[in-house]
Amino acid sequence: MLKRVIPYAHELLKASAELGETVIDGTCGKGNDTIFLSHIVGKEGHVLAFDIQSEAITHTKQRITEEGISNVTLIQEDHQYLGSHLSDHLKNHIGGAIFNLGYLPGSDKSVITKPESTIAAVDTITDYLKPGGVLVLVVYHGHHGGDIERDALLEHLHRYDQKQYQVLQYRFINQKNNPPFVLAIGKN
Amino acid sequence: MLKRVIPYAHELLKASAELGETVIDGTCGKGNDTIFLSHIVGKEGHVLAFDIQSEAITHTKQRITEEGISNVTLIQEDHQYLGSHLSDHLKNHIGGAIFNLGYLPGSDKSVITKPESTIAAVDTITDYLKPGGVLVLVVYHGHHGGDIERDALLEHLHRYDQKQYQVLQYRFINQKNNPPFVLAIGKN
Repeated sequence: MLKRVIPYAHELLKASAELGETVIDGTCGKGNDTIFLSHIVGKEGHVLAFDIQSEAITHTKQRITEEGISNVTLIQEDHQYLGSHLSDHLKNHIGGAIFNLGYLPGSDKSVITKPESTIAAVDTITDYLKPGGVLVLVVYHGHHGGDIERDALLEHLHRYDQKQYQVLQYRFINQKNNPPFVLAIGKN
Repeated sequence: MLKRVIPYAHELLKASAELGETVIDGTCGKGNDTIFLSHIVGKEGHVLAFDIQSEAITHTKQRITEEGISNVTLIQEDHQYLGSHLSDHLKNHIGGAIFNLGYLPGSDKSVITKPESTIAAVDTITDYLKPGGVLVLVVYHGHHGGDIERDALLEHLHRYDQKQYQVLQYRFINQKNNPPFVLAIGKN
């Protein structure tokens, strides 16, 4: 069978990041991707996990404590400013990254990611990615304003230089209700 | 790195078809996919390979002879009529299938696949697929008329019932010159 969106996003991260590397969860939410990344990079690796919402940080902190995970740093911040938390030596060394964009199911509906901050975050991360690394975006766009963010992002990524980056879209085209899709940016 | 279109198409076929099954190459062309499928299903399996062009049949015949492959049946036929070559007991038993649509690089430019016959072929194959099986379409659309076939096909597949089928699009969105993309139809 064809892989659904979340398992496919995880498969891409697994193929991108290696043991001991630093990786980024741009929107930790309920902590699922944070924990997944933590296992990929192992004890010698490091996960930088961001979220704008304090509940997300609290929730993820509780989960990683329960699981005895010690390689995660949680940072409450709008993802557009995550570059200010990345040291220069990480440039071209980030093993992989993931963002959930839009309204995250089960969280506060009034807090959604916005086109300008998303685009700023994407440009920052791709700059820090290692050659061969992948930034995975899971795009939820069924909420109010979701179409605007989606279209602005696609328009921006269409212009990414194909000599430097490959931009892949993975989407199911016969599902109702605007299902989420994956955008993956691979650095050459 | 992200998988290019042909390796990704082959990965899907490998995940779909099993040893001993019957599979279909709807457009054998230079025989690459035919040979790939032949190895997936093994000696107890069977590849039905179609092409409308006699040169493609001759070329593929030569290649499978050279490689000592004995599990392929070659049939010169427009893929819209391939259903007439499938026996009833194959219904819901085809392990996987692949079509290259549009102008196949390196072949006669005047012979291109057409929307109506492509759609008829796709509907036939999905009907014969086993549950869990995948039909992979590699869509070349950079040639004259390619946009018409592409749009007609997408429009048709958008309407496939999501209870019965998943229709996936895998495409690179930042490449110039209308690069080929994958459409994959998975049967539930």
